[in-house]
Amino acid sequence: VERIAVADLGSNSFRLVVYAYEPGRWWQHADEIREAVRISEGVGDDGRLREEPMRRAVRTAEVFDAFCRASHVEQVEAVATSAIRDAVNRDELISQLAERTSLPVRVVSTHEEARYGYLAIANSTTIADGFGVDVGGGSVQVMHMRDRQLAADDSWPLGAVRMSERFLPGDEEADSKAIKALRKHVAKEVGRADWFGADNGDRLAGIGGTIRNLATAAERRAGVEHPGDAQGYVLTHKALEDLIDELAGLPAHKRGGVPGIKPDRGDVILGGAVVLSALMEAGGFGEIEVTEAGLREGVFFERFLADLDPPLFPDVRRAAVENLASRYQADLTHPRHVAELSLQLFDELADADAHDLGPAERELLWSACMLHDIGTIVDYDDHHKHSRYLIENAGLPGFTPREVVLVALIARYHRKGTPDASELGKLAKKSDESRLAILSGMVRLAEQLERSRDGAVRAVRVESENGRIRLQPELAHEAEVAIWSARRNADLLAQAIDRELEIAAPS
Amino acid sequence: VERIAVADLGSNSFRLVVYAYEPGRWWQHADEIREAVRISEGVGDDGRLREEPMRRAVRTAEVFDAFCRASHVEQVEAVATSAIRDAVNRDELISQLAERTSLPVRVVSTHEEARYGYLAIANSTTIADGFGVDVGGGSVQVMHMRDRQLAADDSWPLGAVRMSERFLPGDEEADSKAIKALRKHVAKEVGRADWFGADNGDRLAGIGGTIRNLATAAERRAGVEHPGDAQGYVLTHKALEDLIDELAGLPAHKRGGVPGIKPDRGDVILGGAVVLSALMEAGGFGEIEVTEAGLREGVFFERFLADLDPPLFPDVRRAAVENLASRYQADLTHPRHVAELSLQLFDELADADAHDLGPAERELLWSACMLHDIGTIVDYDDHHKHSRYLIENAGLPGFTPREVVLVALIARYHRKGTPDASELGKLAKKSDESRLAILSGMVRLAEQLERSRDGAVRAVRVESENGRIRLQPELAHEAEVAIWSARRNADLLAQAIDRELEIAAPS
Repeated sequence: VERIAVADLGSNSFRLVVYAYEPGRWWQHADEIREAVRISEGVGDDGRLREEPMRRAVRTAEVFDAFCRASHVEQVEAVATSAIRDAVNRDELISQLAERTSLPVRVVSTHEEARYGYLAIANSTTIADGFGVDVGGGSVQVMHMRDRQLAADDSWPLGAVRMSERFLPGDEEADSKAIKALRKHVAKEVGRADWFGADNGDRLAGIGGTIRNLATAAERRAGVEHPGDAQGYVLTHKALEDLIDELAGLPAHKRGGVPGIKPDRGDVILGGAVVLSALMEAGGFGEIEVTEAGLREGVFFERFLADLDPPLFPDVRRAAVENLASRYQADLTHPRHVAELSLQLFDELADADAHDLGPAERELLWSACMLHDIGTIVDYDDHHKHSRYLIENAGLPGFTPREVVLVALIARYHRKGTPDASELGKLAKKSDESRLAILSGMVRLAEQLERSRDGAVRAVRVESENGRIRLQPELAHEAEVAIWSARRNADLLAQAIDRELEIAAPS
Repeated sequence: VERIAVADLGSNSFRLVVYAYEPGRWWQHADEIREAVRISEGVGDDGRLREEPMRRAVRTAEVFDAFCRASHVEQVEAVATSAIRDAVNRDELISQLAERTSLPVRVVSTHEEARYGYLAIANSTTIADGFGVDVGGGSVQVMHMRDRQLAADDSWPLGAVRMSERFLPGDEEADSKAIKALRKHVAKEVGRADWFGADNGDRLAGIGGTIRNLATAAERRAGVEHPGDAQGYVLTHKALEDLIDELAGLPAHKRGGVPGIKPDRGDVILGGAVVLSALMEAGGFGEIEVTEAGLREGVFFERFLADLDPPLFPDVRRAAVENLASRYQADLTHPRHVAELSLQLFDELADADAHDLGPAERELLWSACMLHDIGTIVDYDDHHKHSRYLIENAGLPGFTPREVVLVALIARYHRKGTPDASELGKLAKKSDESRLAILSGMVRLAEQLERSRDGAVRAVRVESENGRIRLQPELAHEAEVAIWSARRNADLLAQAIDRELEIAAPS
């Protein structure tokens, strides 16, 4: 296992994130240390960083440095963004950091920063054509993607702190005139960027803390509950407007108490929400897809995917599933074969009109097969439940929360019990009960066919006659026990497709 | 990572369990395959195994064999117990197995079987002097331990199936006369073994499916809920008697529906319960400690601990904690240092009369420190919650369920939130709120002192003056950031011990 640490020397906090990985196999966010350095504290019109914040910055960088050495992290990247970039006396800080630590601090340009944001978005969403946005404190960064490439980027002085101070000062409830004025200001600014706007199905992605907080708050308002974070959540303009109404009706010091909003963002979250809403309106976007990845992941992906140009996963969803599968399993032979058999069942049962699920469900089925056994890392007993826990909590970039929970539930029910769609809560849709039963029924059956783990059942064919389904296993060699167990585990699928289902003796 | 598979060719089922391990570091139950072979089916007075069950046995053994080869398990042990041992034609089966598979099948004697049971008990409980019991289908195995050695063992023909058939035939509710007769029969049989009985604090441990089911059912009756299994649960004679009353009041076919009892044991569980109760009474045992380990673990421990004679963990509880810690962490430097600092706080604050917790809590504190970060294997975000999940679900042999949950909660609250004793449910005791707050408060503080992961804060001394507590860190080198963060994270402990708590500037 190798480790890379990325230090993000930001305006509000410095954060060191350690990624563990095996090249070409998997990666994960393994460790972290964060300090609220507030480097810009007290910076006035002279644009100079002050003594005390600089001292905190150096001390914190020393801790990062010690931390990397003590935890045997050999690759370190340290990236300084706007607060340091824009300071008049930044060289003073940089030379102190160089003197006192071995962190290779790099002050990145706005364009480089946008590029890291783009790498984060392109590697954690399925957006090929569209826009990315990050509502920061001082400015808003916008990225334009065409065919998964960064086509353009810009930085607008519309950040949440800046706009809140200018348009929404004081602690009172926000009045509608002030909000209107802020919207107008944003619209005017954006109006000059004629390249910004939804066109031909362009999508919009959001990164950064402001948007993450807004998405989480909107999820809570909607009563959506799931483990893990807001990764993949689709925030509609309508839901954002409702949230703005709620926030505006509260004095500023209470906004941090709204579920999903972090207390220390309470004072600027309304400004950020209005800016985002106005941007969406100006660009004609009805919704924004939220990703938890950001600058740090962009820096990491550039290293982890260095063999690829640009450094992008060829297929984000597939990569997410294989990443999670590989984190907990050294050998994927078994899950891959279960996936193969399950997909054969899926395809041939569709041909036999035994179900009418489509490519979306087929992908969820494949994903659940790849992940059905990861829970054994916790304990063999109840490993199906542990698989569910790991999938829901680690998440799958590129999938929506609903899709993640579906994959987790299919994995959960590959063994024991009857799927219960109510476990999806507010994420449930019509016929999820049947959807879950069919898909977990397939994994459950395929798992038994692959009982000996050696591909004894090479393939399975479906024959249909007068509505009766007959599964014909193709054997590589003797597999009597696999057939016995498959027969004992066929009920869930048979009931789900409402057919008689027979498993033929090996031919 | 190495792997050993232990095949247990038992009366009811054949089970292959794969243990993954790193020699001297950790082990875990990694995989399993089970087939209800029912090898004794149809065996009559002639004592001969029948054709069809033998065919199932051979087929199943072939699957085990293929499974081991396909999953690259190179070390395999295969152990046959009473059903095969006692069969007149066992050699026929053994030679078929030898011909068709490469499993190194060994028919173990009752004494060898008892020895494996003893190894399981001595490595998963803290019993040094006492007895072990396993209520099987045909017979009851009893082990006598002195100073963690196997002093004696015996096998009595009092198994659950045999006794149920003889004393409790039919499906009706059991009448009290029949139960009385069975008790008397057991008492008479046991009466001959004058070495069996509680003496000088001798303890009793139970292994095997019958006792596990009874313990789980008793837990459910008592409303005790916790993740994981019945490991470490203390079943009182009184609770067992209540359970017997409940089971006796049901027709046999409904007993499998009692929560905690597996459906396929329903028909013989009452017989097993009465036998166990009579044994406890005859031996003068007020309670029995249940362990999930059994024959298979005994076989495994003999290999895993081959360097030790006898193959026993020197300290079962310590071994359980270090095992779980090592499964998820390659480097234990950080948790060990957090443990060291936490124990210093614990000891010196006790000297300063700031708390009155004792050695039991001190051990829970150490355990939680060793395990506080294991949740990062799931995801860094919310890793404190994941640590709790992993501890509760993987369990800690040698600890009671209450102790496991306490360790899990201390780890949970090393970061964020306020401990809530109600999370212990029925396992809660008086002053758990304070107990949890003090112990997690210590970990939380120690974690911050060890922020840079390099032992910058080497030790921490407690000074007490007029009821005010002053913590004096001893530094290996500069640790300003650690002190800042410790100060920000001292509230939980300060409130828990109800003292003003100051962290001194580095001296």
